[in-house]
Amino acid sequence: MSLEDPSLYASRLAALRHAMHHAGVDAYYIPSADPHLSEYLPEHWQGRQWLTGFEGSAGNVLVTQEFAGLWTDSRYWVQAEQQFRASPFTLMRQGEADVPSITDWVRQHMPANAVLAFDGKVMSVTAYEAWESLSQEGWTINAELDLLEAIWQERPPLPLAPIFEHESEYVAQTRAQKIAGLRQQLIEHQADWWLLSSLDDIAWLLNLRGNDVPYNPVFLAHALVSAHTFRLYLEESKVSTELMLRLAEDGISLRPYDMLSMDLLELPIQQYLGLDPQRVTVGTLQNAQHLHWLPLPNPTQTTKAIKADSELAHIRRAMEKDGAALCVFFAQFEQQLAQGQSLTELDVDQRLTAARAQQPDFISPSFGTIAAFGANGAMPHYQATPQAFSVIEGDGLLLIDSGGQYLDGTTDITRVVPIGQITDAQKTDYTRVLKGMIALSRAVFPRGVTGQQLDVLARAPLWEVGLEFGHGTGHGVGYFLNVHEGPQSISWRGRNPAVPLEVGMITSNEPGLYRAGEWGIRIENLVVVQPALSTEFGDFLSFETLTLCPIDTRCLNLSLLNAAEVEWLNGYHQEVRERLSPYLHDEALAWLIERTEPIL
Amino acid sequence: MSLEDPSLYASRLAALRHAMHHAGVDAYYIPSADPHLSEYLPEHWQGRQWLTGFEGSAGNVLVTQEFAGLWTDSRYWVQAEQQFRASPFTLMRQGEADVPSITDWVRQHMPANAVLAFDGKVMSVTAYEAWESLSQEGWTINAELDLLEAIWQERPPLPLAPIFEHESEYVAQTRAQKIAGLRQQLIEHQADWWLLSSLDDIAWLLNLRGNDVPYNPVFLAHALVSAHTFRLYLEESKVSTELMLRLAEDGISLRPYDMLSMDLLELPIQQYLGLDPQRVTVGTLQNAQHLHWLPLPNPTQTTKAIKADSELAHIRRAMEKDGAALCVFFAQFEQQLAQGQSLTELDVDQRLTAARAQQPDFISPSFGTIAAFGANGAMPHYQATPQAFSVIEGDGLLLIDSGGQYLDGTTDITRVVPIGQITDAQKTDYTRVLKGMIALSRAVFPRGVTGQQLDVLARAPLWEVGLEFGHGTGHGVGYFLNVHEGPQSISWRGRNPAVPLEVGMITSNEPGLYRAGEWGIRIENLVVVQPALSTEFGDFLSFETLTLCPIDTRCLNLSLLNAAEVEWLNGYHQEVRERLSPYLHDEALAWLIERTEPIL
Repeated sequence: MSLEDPSLYASRLAALRHAMHHAGVDAYYIPSADPHLSEYLPEHWQGRQWLTGFEGSAGNVLVTQEFAGLWTDSRYWVQAEQQFRASPFTLMRQGEADVPSITDWVRQHMPANAVLAFDGKVMSVTAYEAWESLSQEGWTINAELDLLEAIWQERPPLPLAPIFEHESEYVAQTRAQKIAGLRQQLIEHQADWWLLSSLDDIAWLLNLRGNDVPYNPVFLAHALVSAHTFRLYLEESKVSTELMLRLAEDGISLRPYDMLSMDLLELPIQQYLGLDPQRVTVGTLQNAQHLHWLPLPNPTQTTKAIKADSELAHIRRAMEKDGAALCVFFAQFEQQLAQGQSLTELDVDQRLTAARAQQPDFISPSFGTIAAFGANGAMPHYQATPQAFSVIEGDGLLLIDSGGQYLDGTTDITRVVPIGQITDAQKTDYTRVLKGMIALSRAVFPRGVTGQQLDVLARAPLWEVGLEFGHGTGHGVGYFLNVHEGPQSISWRGRNPAVPLEVGMITSNEPGLYRAGEWGIRIENLVVVQPALSTEFGDFLSFETLTLCPIDTRCLNLSLLNAAEVEWLNGYHQEVRERLSPYLHDEALAWLIERTEPIL
Repeated sequence: MSLEDPSLYASRLAALRHAMHHAGVDAYYIPSADPHLSEYLPEHWQGRQWLTGFEGSAGNVLVTQEFAGLWTDSRYWVQAEQQFRASPFTLMRQGEADVPSITDWVRQHMPANAVLAFDGKVMSVTAYEAWESLSQEGWTINAELDLLEAIWQERPPLPLAPIFEHESEYVAQTRAQKIAGLRQQLIEHQADWWLLSSLDDIAWLLNLRGNDVPYNPVFLAHALVSAHTFRLYLEESKVSTELMLRLAEDGISLRPYDMLSMDLLELPIQQYLGLDPQRVTVGTLQNAQHLHWLPLPNPTQTTKAIKADSELAHIRRAMEKDGAALCVFFAQFEQQLAQGQSLTELDVDQRLTAARAQQPDFISPSFGTIAAFGANGAMPHYQATPQAFSVIEGDGLLLIDSGGQYLDGTTDITRVVPIGQITDAQKTDYTRVLKGMIALSRAVFPRGVTGQQLDVLARAPLWEVGLEFGHGTGHGVGYFLNVHEGPQSISWRGRNPAVPLEVGMITSNEPGLYRAGEWGIRIENLVVVQPALSTEFGDFLSFETLTLCPIDTRCLNLSLLNAAEVEWLNGYHQEVRERLSPYLHDEALAWLIERTEPIL
């Protein structure tokens, strides 16, 4: 927003209010969502950003004639405050005790005969329940109104990036095998049809990838599957003739992206339609009211999360390439700093991405790089911009959270390195975060245990002295797919806290510590669940660490580490050295050797 | 059952089937429950025991003309197998994959027009939901049929033990203050009435105790409370005239125990009745169908669980007396064993209770003592009986789980001691269990954390080598009240897993390990949540260990303990020695000194 005139947003808001008045709408709601309920949205559905100027990835808007509010969580309050300095929008600090939810705000402020409206095409079935309650309490709900369409003149078109195969050398099951598995689940759930709108599920199921949104190699589509038919709804120009033929061979018929609604209408009455209410929108189902809905998690969700051994072999190689790229970056970065070059957070992002791009099969970053120096690191979701960034100079901690998409894997790694002289307090914090990460890395647990149960292992060394971090300890990760991909997580407040960890599931392991205005620490590896041992008490599992990159030992307070922790760290560094050395030479190899020296 | 003729149970079953036939009932269900849904039942409601001969505390019966099954969980399978050797009842191993629940058994075996019946007076509103589903699926449900009444000739009458005050010197709030607090909650929940059937809630609220069931100092009653009235339903002969006057002063009117149902019928239509659906039965509510039910946990539940500082001061003294009694017992027991006396598990129970009874304000054991030698210890709920017990001789581990009710507190402690020579494998198991207990004892955690989240701390040292135990790690404990008293627990499968631990809540800390046919280990202290520290990251809590008794260091494998664990154990033993010494002399004091020597 800093580049644009604040009055621009006042005029857009005025246009929306005019359209609301014209349509007889008293309150209009705009969530941050698209018809696929993705984490990253194509620009076409970034209407909230267009309307408000607020660029954070999470934020929902409610507009009346007297009020315009943006609800966003604590990660974005600082950013929203800066961007809203001259804005007509009020920042609503979602999660604070005295800030009502949007639906409760409606209850408190809107008269009982008011008309509330939104575009149901971008609201999940689950999220719609809160609005349905309002409807039952007397308010009138119009869930089919896209008011932005008329006032957003220069609205970007839908993306048209080509779709390509995730080639058979990389995947453990063919498209036909995966579809057969889904059909088996249809039978088990007694469903006549299954509707998939979630892009990661569709991409995984079909062994296809695309480039319609940043960072996630997915393409816009819906899929409607029965025992004998497979209809894939997408813009056909994205599909080459050759690919089209191969899809036809697998019994997949292509249909125009916007034909899904008409096709749903024509399904026989009373048939059973399976759908994941968190991953399908009410707008998509507008023409499916004559069907019996079976609200269940997508059957693809768990099978997608469990990586096959052959896929893990690819992923291990992607981790080696990614680690090698980091070594090349760090060696050069430290040398240039030592030579007195002025480097910024933006340079880190640019050079790290360039180092990854040198690796075979690299496609793109897997999310926007977080390079945060000093106090910036205390904001867990900080992003340097050309308008606001720090120069890396003086003394402090530099936190770098980044990842890559490769044809053979998705990476996500956070490291913290010292710049200049760092303090004993910083070393103590760093060591406690590492103790938590090691405790989780070393965990052994019975089959059936959830990530929720293990979360405390990563936090206990911080809690012991009154420290805590406000985000989850681990998120699921896809295979050349989304970097945030469940259902598994290591968090006691996750979306699916009761999902047991199964062999082949990948999660991050990333405890942190954030001292506002001072420094931030996060240390992150990816880990995969593997069998550990079987006894008379059952089968036990443990984590194999996938990520390969030195953990900076210059930041350690060695007196805080016990023997088991030292052993783990030395063992990890030995493996990092052995597996990355073949990829490196000269300065990068020397850097690797130096940074993987055993401690004690 | 070993003392009685198996044909007795065949004839009782025949009488029940005759009554079923007469009443037109195809399947009759008998749960282990009473109208107050207590853990321990008055004999009057031990109809399942009377019918089947099975004496385990958990077990539910379903009878048809062709089938008679007892469902019970894994704790009781061995016991039920022994007791059912010549029984007409089939043991249904509840929890095994191929054993259906009782309602699923009905679905699989009963024709759609069958009539199912039970006595709703002993079924919670929550439990009734599963039967209501059957009703919706087409079976006919009769929830008001007590078929035992007619055939159980010698049915024991209701207990009539006198009720007494838990005197003001022991309690932090008067009866009037507690009732005022409950009325405040009625206002907050917009309830006109609150119905309490749970005996611990009523006893706590009124600062009264009784002796109607073994081990729990409660009395049979219901309470119906409004903003201005308090009706207490009980057998008036239990209340002295003096106490009756004092209750009248506090605005409490006594009503006959069986008048509740009539009184509910006379409440004005459409009024709001608060009730805890897990702690009120559908039979009790038979005449409350014209009221709006507010199904919520009893408001007394959490306030009862949070002990005041002045109450904790009493409880600490009760723990000292209890620990002293254990020292007296152990000193004498070990001496007699050394002298070659023959002692049995039953002797342990008898002598330990006798030692406790020497202490001021002792009332009764808080549950049936578990004294289990050798392989008996591998059954977590083993109870020696005059018909089946072991002599304590040779080599092995002796597990003793016991507790006392004192006017100033409720105790519950488990210790394991070596008899003769014990093996390295036993020492290693013992040490790993202790490591888990110490980890939980030392935990520091932010306000808001649940016991569920901390559970893994006690299990990790076992999981590490493929060991596990099948029970919860900790249960809530009352104050001169029930030894199992929530809502807090340390268990990831608890009834109320989402209850945060609050300052003043007491739980047990009792990891274990059970090797079937070999030995069992459990080490148990009671702990209370206390403030630990406050930082910029929030308020942090920790556990104060309440239980005072040596943890036998002769069973340790010292090489498995780290420095922090050794420090905890030595610190604990120093405190045990300091606080128990003033209560002891001669052999018992010498025993205490020897058993609290620091290790390493």
